[in-house]
Amino acid sequence: MVSRNKLRKIFSKHQPIFGDNTIFKVRNNIYNLNKVHAATTKTIDNNSKDPLETTTTIAEYSISQEKYISNDNINAIEQKDDVSDIFHRAVYPIIIIAQCFGVMPVMGVRHKNPRRMQFSFISMQLLVTLIYFGTTILLLVFMVRHLWFVGIDAKNIGGVIFYISAFLAYVLFMLLAARWPKLIRVWARSEITFNQKPYEILPKNLAARIRTAATIIIILSAVEHGLSVASNVLNYTRKIEICAAALNTSAKSSFDDFIKQHYVFIYSMIPYNIYGGAYIMLIHGACTFVWNYMDLFIVMISKGIAYRFEQITTRINKLAGKEIPEDTFAEIREHYVKVCELLDYVDDNLSGIILLSCANNLYFVCNQLLNVFNKLRWPINYIYFWYSLLYLIGRTAYVFLTAASINDESKAALGVLRRVSKTTWCVEVERLIFQMATQTVALSGKKFYYLTRKLLFGILIPQIPFTEKVNEVMEKILELQRASSHDFEDQ
Amino acid sequence: MVSRNKLRKIFSKHQPIFGDNTIFKVRNNIYNLNKVHAATTKTIDNNSKDPLETTTTIAEYSISQEKYISNDNINAIEQKDDVSDIFHRAVYPIIIIAQCFGVMPVMGVRHKNPRRMQFSFISMQLLVTLIYFGTTILLLVFMVRHLWFVGIDAKNIGGVIFYISAFLAYVLFMLLAARWPKLIRVWARSEITFNQKPYEILPKNLAARIRTAATIIIILSAVEHGLSVASNVLNYTRKIEICAAALNTSAKSSFDDFIKQHYVFIYSMIPYNIYGGAYIMLIHGACTFVWNYMDLFIVMISKGIAYRFEQITTRINKLAGKEIPEDTFAEIREHYVKVCELLDYVDDNLSGIILLSCANNLYFVCNQLLNVFNKLRWPINYIYFWYSLLYLIGRTAYVFLTAASINDESKAALGVLRRVSKTTWCVEVERLIFQMATQTVALSGKKFYYLTRKLLFGILIPQIPFTEKVNEVMEKILELQRASSHDFEDQ
Amino acid sequence: MVSRNKLRKIFSKHQPIFGDNTIFKVRNNIYNLNKVHAATTKTIDNNSKDPLETTTTIAEYSISQEKYISNDNINAIEQKDDVSDIFHRAVYPIIIIAQCFGVMPVMGVRHKNPRRMQFSFISMQLLVTLIYFGTTILLLVFMVRHLWFVGIDAKNIGGVIFYISAFLAYVLFMLLAARWPKLIRVWARSEITFNQKPYEILPKNLAARIRTAATIIIILSAVEHGLSVASNVLNYTRKIEICAAALNTSAKSSFDDFIKQHYVFIYSMIPYNIYGGAYIMLIHGACTFVWNYMDLFIVMISKGIAYRFEQITTRINKLAGKEIPEDTFAEIREHYVKVCELLDYVDDNLSGIILLSCANNLYFVCNQLLNVFNKLRWPINYIYFWYSLLYLIGRTAYVFLTAASINDESKAALGVLRRVSKTTWCVEVERLIFQMATQTVALSGKKFYYLTRKLLFGILIPQIPFTEKVNEVMEKILELQRASSHDFEDQ
Amino acid sequence: MVSRNKLRKIFSKHQPIFGDNTIFKVRNNIYNLNKVHAATTKTIDNNSKDPLETTTTIAEYSISQEKYISNDNINAIEQKDDVSDIFHRAVYPIIIIAQCFGVMPVMGVRHKNPRRMQFSFISMQLLVTLIYFGTTILLLVFMVRHLWFVGIDAKNIGGVIFYISAFLAYVLFMLLAARWPKLIRVWARSEITFNQKPYEILPKNLAARIRTAATIIIILSAVEHGLSVASNVLNYTRKIEICAAALNTSAKSSFDDFIKQHYVFIYSMIPYNIYGGAYIMLIHGACTFVWNYMDLFIVMISKGIAYRFEQITTRINKLAGKEIPEDTFAEIREHYVKVCELLDYVDDNLSGIILLSCANNLYFVCNQLLNVFNKLRWPINYIYFWYSLLYLIGRTAYVFLTAASINDESKAALGVLRRVSKTTWCVEVERLIFQMATQTVALSGKKFYYLTRKLLFGILIPQIPFTEKVNEVMEKILELQRASSHDFEDQ
Repeated sequence: MVSRNKLRKIFSKHQPIFGDNTIFKVRNNIYNLNKVHAATTKTIDNNSKDPLETTTTIAEYSISQEKYISNDNINAIEQKDDVSDIFHRAVYPIIIIAQCFGVMPVMGVRHKNPRRMQFSFISMQLLVTLIYFGTTILLLVFMVRHLWFVGIDAKNIGGVIFYISAFLAYVLFMLLAARWPKLIRVWARSEITFNQKPYEILPKNLAARIRTAATIIIILSAVEHGLSVASNVLNYTRKIEICAAALNTSAKSSFDDFIKQHYVFIYSMIPYNIYGGAYIMLIHGACTFVWNYMDLFIVMISKGIAYRFEQITTRINKLAGKEIPEDTFAEIREHYVKVCELLDYVDDNLSGIILLSCANNLYFVCNQLLNVFNKLRWPINYIYFWYSLLYLIGRTAYVFLTAASINDESKAALGVLRRVSKTTWCVEVERLIFQMATQTVALSGKKFYYLTRKLLFGILIPQIPFTEKVNEVMEKILELQRASSHDFEDQ
Repeated sequence: MVSRNKLRKIFSKHQPIFGDNTIFKVRNNIYNLNKVHAATTKTIDNNSKDPLETTTTIAEYSISQEKYISNDNINAIEQKDDVSDIFHRAVYPIIIIAQCFGVMPVMGVRHKNPRRMQFSFISMQLLVTLIYFGTTILLLVFMVRHLWFVGIDAKNIGGVIFYISAFLAYVLFMLLAARWPKLIRVWARSEITFNQKPYEILPKNLAARIRTAATIIIILSAVEHGLSVASNVLNYTRKIEICAAALNTSAKSSFDDFIKQHYVFIYSMIPYNIYGGAYIMLIHGACTFVWNYMDLFIVMISKGIAYRFEQITTRINKLAGKEIPEDTFAEIREHYVKVCELLDYVDDNLSGIILLSCANNLYFVCNQLLNVFNKLRWPINYIYFWYSLLYLIGRTAYVFLTAASINDESKAALGVLRRVSKTTWCVEVERLIFQMATQTVALSGKKFYYLTRKLLFGILIPQIPFTEKVNEVMEKILELQRASSHDFEDQ
Repeated sequence: MVSRNKLRKIFSKHQPIFGDNTIFKVRNNIYNLNKVHAATTKTIDNNSKDPLETTTTIAEYSISQEKYISNDNINAIEQKDDVSDIFHRAVYPIIIIAQCFGVMPVMGVRHKNPRRMQFSFISMQLLVTLIYFGTTILLLVFMVRHLWFVGIDAKNIGGVIFYISAFLAYVLFMLLAARWPKLIRVWARSEITFNQKPYEILPKNLAARIRTAATIIIILSAVEHGLSVASNVLNYTRKIEICAAALNTSAKSSFDDFIKQHYVFIYSMIPYNIYGGAYIMLIHGACTFVWNYMDLFIVMISKGIAYRFEQITTRINKLAGKEIPEDTFAEIREHYVKVCELLDYVDDNLSGIILLSCANNLYFVCNQLLNVFNKLRWPINYIYFWYSLLYLIGRTAYVFLTAASINDESKAALGVLRRVSKTTWCVEVERLIFQMATQTVALSGKKFYYLTRKLLFGILIPQIPFTEKVNEVMEKILELQRASSHDFEDQ
Repeated sequence: MVSRNKLRKIFSKHQPIFGDNTIFKVRNNIYNLNKVHAATTKTIDNNSKDPLETTTTIAEYSISQEKYISNDNINAIEQKDDVSDIFHRAVYPIIIIAQCFGVMPVMGVRHKNPRRMQFSFISMQLLVTLIYFGTTILLLVFMVRHLWFVGIDAKNIGGVIFYISAFLAYVLFMLLAARWPKLIRVWARSEITFNQKPYEILPKNLAARIRTAATIIIILSAVEHGLSVASNVLNYTRKIEICAAALNTSAKSSFDDFIKQHYVFIYSMIPYNIYGGAYIMLIHGACTFVWNYMDLFIVMISKGIAYRFEQITTRINKLAGKEIPEDTFAEIREHYVKVCELLDYVDDNLSGIILLSCANNLYFVCNQLLNVFNKLRWPINYIYFWYSLLYLIGRTAYVFLTAASINDESKAALGVLRRVSKTTWCVEVERLIFQMATQTVALSGKKFYYLTRKLLFGILIPQIPFTEKVNEVMEKILELQRASSHDFEDQ
């Protein structure tokens, strides 16, 4: 570290006597030296190329560099402790948990060096995934076959949509897994800059942020799933008891009967078996996990990128009120553009999952809101319904807000930049302001919409009065239905 | 005053011979001298720092300055009469009224010097607040317990929402009260500039604007509450009379019975008591006040900030058609940015209240509009219904329009700036135009939406044809219901 | 004319040897000379002031100039034939027609010189207006009284809304009339520039455009009103005939009975009288006229302003591909800003009418669309319904499109400006492009929304699937109603 | 080719010694030489004019050049093989297929030289078109007459809308055909630039892209039409069989009876005839084709223009990281503006078709979605319904996405331009970025809306929860209807 800072000092002393271009090159050399130092490798051919002036887009760039990867400076991440505040390291425990449920089948997640991560067709992880995935397909087929005979209506469509989205989520995560190692390498490489001066690790570092969020979501979703099972089981046993009382027989509620009745669309097809029943409950649980994990995944990605924008904002805030040379702003703008490009690259790979997650959340929230006035039988049903509704709304809002924080952070430095005084004002500041003010920097659903704070409002508000009104119409119709059926009964 | 103007003249004579930077520093010195003059204090260490070039954001800035606050120039507000056109002084009578209903429990509201205001956990104001707040919670708990037995439907949900929003309003105003003294100090400090030349107090000054609006809203809301009580009382007495006539007994309508029946969700739980009844009516009144005060509060804040933008616009309008040096525009831009920052800071503290107020207004307006075709029993019911509907729509529109006036005023100078001739055109004008044209300067609901004129249209218009159509469907269903029940009765 | 062109030539020869500023002043002098020449008056104190560099906004400016107005160059309009392509002259015949129905009570509409126009409280026009207006209020009062007894429902609300909007339209036009003389003077003054070189009168001049549109709208609306009366009369006579046939009496359908029945809300209050009946039909006709005239008025204003933007576009298009000095662009930009200011001024005075007209059109179109599937009795009813629906949609679309043409024309020159080559590029072109690209130049409904092409889509499209779906639900309910009433009848 | 490249080399050697202006002129000369070389004609008067600095808009330009057209360089397309990657050549086979169904009646589609294409009132193509068109009008008239007696309701309105849109499509394509030869010439001329260095033919060339898309759409639409016929025929035969079984007669399902029953609105008017029946089926097929072809046509146009933007993006991407002279960016910007103008010109001619297509797709998708819960009779009905629904959604999405790709591609180079370093930054880059960031480059529906990715979301999302909710209400009403009719039956 000393030597790096020394070099920096030496060069900065001589800066005034160099021409504009010279300084720039020297600056690049410093960077390269930094990188060499960090990488403890000999090859610099790949580093001596200025990343800003590259011909290829970031994605192509990373592909073309794939062969040099063994010499790459991202190896540094493994050896050095001061390059540890990176997304890959922050996220790995959650990915390991996900792999237990067959999501994201990549190898080498635990290695500190992202280089070691790879996707292979012959791996334990993929096998686990395929087992889950295969059974999900089977369940889906059974359900569709069941609906073919029963007919689709507003009640049973929820189940199909749940399995279809679990199925699609598995597909999307498998496709993502194949591209994940490369993505994480590109990401790690772009994060090195932000682990060096003048950037600082923020008070609450990346790993802490991501893991806190993940823990909370996983626990709350487990409770939700538990309540769902409890609600179903109690429904079943109470019904048995009442029937028994009515028929004057003794009530016999067994696990077997519960499973048979609850998964009737399966057991009308195949014979029942206690292990099969447990297995199906496991798969159902996995589907619920995947369904929650999509949202969690978007949260983690969002936090990872928003963190970098926050670092840039912090740096700009520190510059406020000082006389800053144009080169500093040029450098900041360069880093800003780099994070934007990383976001764009991540978004390309992720927006299928975002689209699915949003559609899912929108559907289930609307669906639940529509049932607010429904009469339920037992207290446990009410508890489950309201917990589930609030959890769903809360999770949806959290995902949106976290994703929107990328957009918020990307614009956060605008205030300081607008206060830049007449003397410090330069073309680079102008470019930076123009870019911040006109570009929509955010995760997107296949570019159809961008996850910004304004969007949430655009979706939710028009629904509120609507839902209530239609609810009221619905209620009146139900009343009418009850009344007429009642009257006829009276006759 | 003479000496200040003299200094200004002296310096302005010499301006042409100074370099660009020199002028700027001298100008700052003039400012500082002005401030010193105004403050009649000796310390200038805090003032000699150029506020434009500060490292910290406005919020942090104010915190770091907290210790110097006894020497601060905002003390000037107390001694000098020409620094009197400030938000703190304009707003204090309304805050005192609010404190009678337990809103905004801060001490020292009446002091001219904002420095004297403070929030304390041991204060009369907080005690009053806690009494109101505690009772509101109790009412809410009773109501939820009542609903647990009765079940939620479209009719009784209105009551819960009313109490929930009153409860949330109390919480939000208590949280705000804790931050209010600091906020008002930051605000007052940023207002000093606008009480000095070349800014002028506008024809109708800030206090007059705010107090007129507050008086009107408070009177209209009192009438609304009175009509509501009258409508309920008359409903009750008429019903008693009719029952009595039908049963051939004499009608005995008493205050006790009215209270018992109207607050049935309470008196099904606890025994009745005449003082308790009066107390509950008081709390109900306080909740109604809070519910109205949220809107009034937004109006006052909006007027406070819009006034400053109007002053800037007035100043720019005066410059139109003259040859103006770039420094003047730099100064104006600096002040413009300052007000924007103040707005941002206020918005951060206030947007919870804005969100709650908007949700509330939207809900109750929609709800009332949906009941336009309902048949009511007595003329007083019609009078109350239509007064209440029109008042609600009027208040909502007024809040929106006043809040939107910030946005309108912030762009009002664009016209004059666009007419700036080729010779006066400079980078600072360009920056100012770019900022005005691209930045959304407005109060927001947690940044989900901005209170601008365009928003009002976006919310209301799509509702109009919708409401009518659903109303029509509803009416048909009700007709059907009446017809069928009638037919059955005939049978 | 020769002398002016000569002067221009002389000065343009010498332009290269003057400095930038000198040229500008000389140019202004030329303008002033032109104006003097045109005005044939001696005073130039008012003209020698550069309108671009004026301190006041356009509205204040015109007020302050009011005293000089007798010497103003807009007198030129009267004497000279080449200054004839102005809005005031184009629009006067339509305003005279409107005055027959009590709209826009100003005096001196027929004078060529806009100066002669004035609003007076003692004038024939205002008397006519007050008679119409008073009767409309009376009708409205009768209708509200009628509804008080009958109750509001979805069917009879249409009538109230019709009379309320006619009433509001009268109020708005009276308020506008008081400001109209000043407005037309400001307008005429800003139009002088566009009646001089290098601007040209476009192939189809302003008067032709406005009068063609007005003629078509007036004829179509007269047909609509005629069909409405015919439909009502035939409905009435057929009903009488059927009743007579059923009761075996002879049918006696008289004009008196028709009026009595059709305006039942009046004749339940006051005694019938044949002159009164005819008078009420006239007033009803006048209300229909006002209701149509609002739209026509917006069309005329829009064409008047769009025409000026079209002239600017034509001028810019001619410059394309040539080497243009910056001064030319500065001048064009100045004119562009002037028309924008005129638009803003007109919009301030007009947007109440725009708001009312849009609300009206939206309401009646939605209302009619909802009745598309209704069964009607006689062919004339179908003819009237479909003519009325198509006319309403057509008129609404036409008003929107004409108003939106202001926005279209204001951006039309962007293409040519973007093609400006590297050598001609200058700050003034940049400013012009920036302004065209970022400013919304359009008539507005009180700034809540701007009448642009995009808006039409925003309102209509979300309605289409909606209307159809609700229609379908409605139809089902009606079917249900018919079925159940039928079944009961069968019993 | 050699000579051109040689010239280029010679000039580029000498570039450094020329002044800025000189280079520009020399560059133009090179272009002109290229054109001369390509055209193998002698006249250069038309070419020596710099297209960038032309006075007229692109449309007027092409008209004024019409007389010179025989000498125009677009003849080059015929002789040279390296100028073959143009829209005209890519699209001609699909236009020939369309002509078999009476769409786009222009002559000379097969000629390589766009010059040879022309519209004539005496042509085989127009005759074919008029036969199809006339019969469509006849069908429409029969249908409207039928509805006059039967009455419009939500069920039979679909048929009328289908024929009306087929009718409108024929009209629009005939109008387009008259302007098509000129349009294709303007297009071809603007494409010459992109068939020369430094632009490259992209990996998958234009013809391949367009023809693949066309083949897939045509096959899928044929399957859809086949399934529709099959579904109708099976419905008919099954019904006959059931009736026969019930009446104990033998089932006789004939083609004649099927046609008579299916086109009852025709055969209630005119006598049946086997050739007439077949002919009507053919016309019905043609209407289906036209209905699909509108979408296909938009897809082809979109691909044609998006391809050019992609070439520009590719070129800019190659420049990334190099030191680029301002002239290069000026040239790229010029080409970019040219393609934008071409798009604008095409859009003016096409947006009627776009509007019709969008309205159509929106209507039929909504209509089908509303019927998702309907009970159908036979498996073939389900197969047809779901295939048709998915095909419709798929086609609509594909058209939108392809049209939106123009917008995507037009902004694709923004990333690279934002990475441009401080030294390469120049006014031309700034202008290019500003234009890309602020201009909406996309096909439009008469400028009411632009076909961008964001639009799709704006239309679809608000429909999703809505459709489901209304579906649910509908279902309840139907249930109610069934229940009540059932109960009455039981009585």
